[in-house]
Amino acid sequence: MDDLRRAGRSAVDLAVDHLAAVPGGPVWRPVAEADRSWLTRQPLPGAGRPLADLLHDVRDRILPYPMGNGHPRFFGWVNSPPSPAGVLVAPLAAAMNPSCAGGEHAGVLLERTVVRWLAELVDFPYQPGAGLLASGASVATVIAMATARQRAVRRQGHNVRETGLYGQRPLAIYASAEAHSCLRKAAELLGMGSRYIRTVPVDGAYRMETGALRRMITADREAGVRPFFVAASAGTVNTGTVDPLEEVAGIARECGLWFHIDGAYGALGILAEGARHLYAGLELADSLVLDPHKWLGVPVDAGCVLFRDPVGARDTFSLVPPYLRDDEADALGWFSEYGPEQTRPFRALRVWATISHLGREGIVRLVGRTTRLARTLAAMIEASDDFDLLAPAVTSVIAFRYRSVTLDPAATDALNQAIPAIVQGRGHAFLTGTRLSGTAALRACILHPETTEADLTALLDEIRTAVREATA
Amino acid sequence: MDDLRRAGRSAVDLAVDHLAAVPGGPVWRPVAEADRSWLTRQPLPGAGRPLADLLHDVRDRILPYPMGNGHPRFFGWVNSPPSPAGVLVAPLAAAMNPSCAGGEHAGVLLERTVVRWLAELVDFPYQPGAGLLASGASVATVIAMATARQRAVRRQGHNVRETGLYGQRPLAIYASAEAHSCLRKAAELLGMGSRYIRTVPVDGAYRMETGALRRMITADREAGVRPFFVAASAGTVNTGTVDPLEEVAGIARECGLWFHIDGAYGALGILAEGARHLYAGLELADSLVLDPHKWLGVPVDAGCVLFRDPVGARDTFSLVPPYLRDDEADALGWFSEYGPEQTRPFRALRVWATISHLGREGIVRLVGRTTRLARTLAAMIEASDDFDLLAPAVTSVIAFRYRSVTLDPAATDALNQAIPAIVQGRGHAFLTGTRLSGTAALRACILHPETTEADLTALLDEIRTAVREATA
Ligand SMILES: Cc1ncc(COP(=O)(O)O)c(C=O)c1O
Ligand SMILES: Cc1ncc(COP(=O)(O)O)c(C=O)c1O
Repeated sequence: MDDLRRAGRSAVDLAVDHLAAVPGGPVWRPVAEADRSWLTRQPLPGAGRPLADLLHDVRDRILPYPMGNGHPRFFGWVNSPPSPAGVLVAPLAAAMNPSCAGGEHAGVLLERTVVRWLAELVDFPYQPGAGLLASGASVATVIAMATARQRAVRRQGHNVRETGLYGQRPLAIYASAEAHSCLRKAAELLGMGSRYIRTVPVDGAYRMETGALRRMITADREAGVRPFFVAASAGTVNTGTVDPLEEVAGIARECGLWFHIDGAYGALGILAEGARHLYAGLELADSLVLDPHKWLGVPVDAGCVLFRDPVGARDTFSLVPPYLRDDEADALGWFSEYGPEQTRPFRALRVWATISHLGREGIVRLVGRTTRLARTLAAMIEASDDFDLLAPAVTSVIAFRYRSVTLDPAATDALNQAIPAIVQGRGHAFLTGTRLSGTAALRACILHPETTEADLTALLDEIRTAVREATA
Repeated sequence: MDDLRRAGRSAVDLAVDHLAAVPGGPVWRPVAEADRSWLTRQPLPGAGRPLADLLHDVRDRILPYPMGNGHPRFFGWVNSPPSPAGVLVAPLAAAMNPSCAGGEHAGVLLERTVVRWLAELVDFPYQPGAGLLASGASVATVIAMATARQRAVRRQGHNVRETGLYGQRPLAIYASAEAHSCLRKAAELLGMGSRYIRTVPVDGAYRMETGALRRMITADREAGVRPFFVAASAGTVNTGTVDPLEEVAGIARECGLWFHIDGAYGALGILAEGARHLYAGLELADSLVLDPHKWLGVPVDAGCVLFRDPVGARDTFSLVPPYLRDDEADALGWFSEYGPEQTRPFRALRVWATISHLGREGIVRLVGRTTRLARTLAAMIEASDDFDLLAPAVTSVIAFRYRSVTLDPAATDALNQAIPAIVQGRGHAFLTGTRLSGTAALRACILHPETTEADLTALLDEIRTAVREATA
């Protein structure tokens, strides 16, 4: 134990030194050949070695190669820096090492609390049992879609758990062209076939066109396909757009569809000043996915799915027969009855610590600050003569494009496609690209509590430098 | 940062104090009413509070209520104590906070190494790309079964990802009566219906009856159901039994079925002295699931699936079109192309640290020691006149039963059913029950490196005390 105590303190020092050094170092760097070889080719060790020894490798070979998301000039994908509170409690969760499948212990009880807190943060109506943590939005979406499928097939008098999808009429899923690919992954995994995913077009602001949604549902009905699930986004990955939730909710209700909201990244955006009206209808979702490991900064992994109906997920996943489910003392049963995981880690501790450390006020500040920075970046882009803003600033993702006065459209497209890798390789900022309306775009997602306006200026300058490098 | 450094050291001290105190405290205790109320009813905090403050709550309200699996007299389910090395690196993984979806950074590269190490530990042929970490065996099994389904439907000329299961002939799954329920969960999730899961009977030693397997496959063929997947267990949860892997492999090959092995708990048992011959055929699996968070003691969560064919999982999950997959520098692509998760935590660090700290030799010692203790427990049971051993000691799970000279069979059954909760409540040992061949059984799973023979004696004595309490 003395070993672990000594090494454990060194590990904390290493972790804190790392966090302190990140802002002054490169955002990202390629892995040196010797280190790559160590990382990928170490032989399985025959003999063991002391704990302290491991830390030398961590310091010299592992910590130098982070993904980059700890840095205030990391703008890629949707990856936040870790919350200090999440780092703090990591060894405690590991030392307790519960499985939060179920039973009576702190891990399970605390998960009920943090799920309620997450619902409350975004004003989603909470009922005990109506939600659980997952490894991320992708698995949370699988849980949501499976639960929706169970209900839809039941309404036809069948139990899909028992008979499978073989005899069923195809079930159609509706999501906008800007919806996250985890929806397609979930549909495929569930055996529902990407052929039955309808891509609803978006308007100029990348919001789902609800008129088109309605027409597509009607067309499917007529073709003998059963509409069953519509997914709106509250914060798309490409442009941070929030779909017209209330309208989608109305159509879902009218047509008997399950109303899902992907708020993995953007649900917390409801806390930004003046943003609440954009989220009207969020409270109507049958399922809402939101990721504490995104805007909230809980160290990966931490996803969450919330449900309107507290029993649907249990009906979908529980292997405990209903007549055994009525133990008064534990009416909600086990978390493992609500999703695919049996052994489940103590994710709740990291979520609890992060929310407790920040408080609702701190979260409002974080979301407010990053949203304002995104608006500032949008304004800088609009004021520039070499960038075009591609979508309004809604949450904290900005989609834009380098505009060339000399290159033709095809060459401009190729240039924008080439920019992210060049910027990444230079190490002063990190952004990623995407495609919007068929052309190459740049996007910057702002999630870091210490990003400043100067970092935004630096980002645009880095892109300009990349352009010079690419066109030299 | 100074805050985090100070609090971080206190957190390590708390974690180590906790680990040091565990063996001397109760294995498990019910949550006191005041603490339950705190754990489940805390309001969402408005204001934040200092990191150090959080640790008081952890110390007073959370650490007192572990699940119990850190204790050397915890024999429940299949939950190990945390490896010291896994606890050590937990804050480092959180501080780096990469997503191991893909890209070039230490997290991704190290995952390739630990997957190879796991394969090598159990002598499974490893090919780059043919495996990944998952949150546990349950999700790993979903990945394996989805990959098998993709291949099976392709052989019929269809792509299940595209068209779904709707038009397909039902696909039958074969697993023994002793197989883990995660197989059923996976089949249901994948839309394949529990109706098409065939429960293959077991012999007196709880091994799959391969003659029956063969007959069931033939019967399904004749009935128009397509046999596609057979799951053998290498270490069942109830009795630690290893199915006759080589025979099952032969039938699978002959009949064109996917051969899956659930080695979540028991694959590492191959390292015990004299056990290797039981595992003959393990190397023939199309997919092998094994959980570093079980016998190896990696803190939860850490599961793993290994494949014979390195491209099947990618074909099943990747959203990157094949013509974009041939980047030489990164021929294996992203881990997120091989499973349902997009954002993926740095599980590899805990696995790497645990294996590096123990070395192969340490792992052999751990597996050997716990397996020998299980044999000792079996011998103690056989030598007693109040317990019956229900299955041979194969790995480190022992299934047994209290034998009463005064009670009738129904009352004995009820007594055995009542024993675990009484033992758990007394806090001196923790075991769980199961049903075997239709009757109530007790089972003890030995995974803790510090469990001793005295602890086994204490367990049996605790059961005797529970019997006196129950029959008083
Ligand atoms: C809008 C949205 N939905 C879903 C996901 C997938 O989330 P995860 O990576 O946690 O599975 C993402 C990830 O970036 C996202 O931005
Ligand atoms: C044999 C076996 N398979 C699968 C599982 C499920 O593993 P997990 O809880 O990691 O999902 C278990 C869990 O105990 C098991 O013992």
